[in-house]
Amino acid sequence: MLLRIEPPYLLFAGDAKDALAAKTGQGIVDWRPDRCLGQLRLAGCRADHGLPDLTVAEGAARGAKTLVIGTVGPGGVLPETWVPVLVDAVECGMDVASGLHTRLGSFPDLRAVAERHGRRLVDVRVPARDFPTGSGRRRPGKRLLTVGTDCAVGKKYTALALERALRERGVDADFRATGQTGILIAGEGVAVDAVPADFISGAVEVLAPAAADDHWDVVEGQGSLFHPSFAGVSLGLLHGAQPDAFVVCHEPTRDTMRNVPASMPSVRDVIEATCRLGRLTNPDIRCVGVAVNTVALGDDDARRSLDAVAGELALPATDPVRYGVEPLVDRLLDG
Amino acid sequence: MLLRIEPPYLLFAGDAKDALAAKTGQGIVDWRPDRCLGQLRLAGCRADHGLPDLTVAEGAARGAKTLVIGTVGPGGVLPETWVPVLVDAVECGMDVASGLHTRLGSFPDLRAVAERHGRRLVDVRVPARDFPTGSGRRRPGKRLLTVGTDCAVGKKYTALALERALRERGVDADFRATGQTGILIAGEGVAVDAVPADFISGAVEVLAPAAADDHWDVVEGQGSLFHPSFAGVSLGLLHGAQPDAFVVCHEPTRDTMRNVPASMPSVRDVIEATCRLGRLTNPDIRCVGVAVNTVALGDDDARRSLDAVAGELALPATDPVRYGVEPLVDRLLDG
Repeated sequence: MLLRIEPPYLLFAGDAKDALAAKTGQGIVDWRPDRCLGQLRLAGCRADHGLPDLTVAEGAARGAKTLVIGTVGPGGVLPETWVPVLVDAVECGMDVASGLHTRLGSFPDLRAVAERHGRRLVDVRVPARDFPTGSGRRRPGKRLLTVGTDCAVGKKYTALALERALRERGVDADFRATGQTGILIAGEGVAVDAVPADFISGAVEVLAPAAADDHWDVVEGQGSLFHPSFAGVSLGLLHGAQPDAFVVCHEPTRDTMRNVPASMPSVRDVIEATCRLGRLTNPDIRCVGVAVNTVALGDDDARRSLDAVAGELALPATDPVRYGVEPLVDRLLDG
Repeated sequence: MLLRIEPPYLLFAGDAKDALAAKTGQGIVDWRPDRCLGQLRLAGCRADHGLPDLTVAEGAARGAKTLVIGTVGPGGVLPETWVPVLVDAVECGMDVASGLHTRLGSFPDLRAVAERHGRRLVDVRVPARDFPTGSGRRRPGKRLLTVGTDCAVGKKYTALALERALRERGVDADFRATGQTGILIAGEGVAVDAVPADFISGAVEVLAPAAADDHWDVVEGQGSLFHPSFAGVSLGLLHGAQPDAFVVCHEPTRDTMRNVPASMPSVRDVIEATCRLGRLTNPDIRCVGVAVNTVALGDDDARRSLDAVAGELALPATDPVRYGVEPLVDRLLDG
């Protein structure tokens, strides 16, 4: 059993200073509106998810099962001032879920009340179980992995958009979350970057298990095979996912990789490396397109950038946020 | 600061049923005799490290700082019957170190006595600290990494033999341990397979840090880039070590990889992949030879196997156990 968050949620927006601070909560609303019962905002909160404003008691009365922290405090931590609200939620019968670095259990009051009421404090960065080492054995069902030229280029968004588009076409598809925000959105998953190194591929085998032949798991990628800090995670994830198909996510205006002095690989480099290394666990692996993050470009430049990528690689290229993922789905279901 | 075991050791051989069961202890005696004060054997022990037999009290009186468990119980666990001896050792002022899966702290009596006496229970499989993510930045000093076509092909032995041979030639060299047995031998190190996945390369940057330009760190490899269970670990280790040189360790009689159905890569495959992927953090990476584990072959076949490898790849090839590592050191220091 994976880490799992019980819906429906009362989304805690805290005293978010702007919409960006509450972007995790907004991601949940955007991708899983059916899981969101209401929002809880403190005095001074400048974010608004467009959900009914509820107190803890009101949320509990309407059946909220988990208070999900969808915002960050200053410095990315969980400020002490939020703790009384979390304690309240537990006393009203809710679990609390968080993707922040600060562990929920590090607040003695909160831990004590959760133990007393038998509620769970779910830190999604902490793997909820032990995993086996990867078997490398081919399993039924189909899997797509989003990979990147770098970190933070849109792998999670692309995977969620692919899940939605596949479902709209009647394909049985599931987003499989591998990072904290993805887990809060999906309600389950594995933070693969926190799994002990020996078990990366094994954890992904559990996350995206054997399935019906026509089922697609859309697995959220992490890092990049070309990122000197995280390539090991990316490779273990690739081998565990044993994807039939992958989409390369790319940000065309970046010169160097995120937080390190390494130069950016080309999309072609990433396709070649992913195919070469991915064949170890799936000899049929193929690239079905490129998701270009054009947020830094105007519309003309964005179109030109997509045309250049598509022309050079003879693959569909789109910006999932700006233009949707239909070209990627077309190629995926054609092949 | 890394995980560190304080010498000198009293080696605990327990009731080892044969020499193989006590091979970790023997490794310490073989490679670090200066750290070994004596051995402690229980009734029925069939292993003998050739050290003075000492009781806990005698070991303590002669200055032993750590009781090191150099053997495994049935099933690889730490049997309850050993615990009174470990408690004794702590009461006599020693730390206890273990590479077994069973955590020393899981025995309440032992944990309590260690806390009372302020002694350490060192489980070398558990990373002793947090690590930063890898920077990917090139650092001074030279590093050699042993890599493998598979797991369990002689990477640790080869690295230890290279350290010894380099020191004998007057080269300032240090073995850097990445697995539990290596850590018990070296007295310090990081079990990289237990580090959270995001920090593999960062942990190795700490393990094999910046050094004088003519200093060699000989880093113990783990897994194989071609092993579907562990390739992520191997890649993170490669990127963190940023080796100037590597030696490929190989077992020529194996058909499939250890514990998985994957076929064995060739030595040439491993050289190519290691160079291609290793260039990300060290563009000057080069292969300096092949360590062939010929234990399954007779002398004629062993010689033929080495000649075949050397001829095909135009690289020195040797079996470190049978014929030593001098050809590898020659090539390393030539280049």
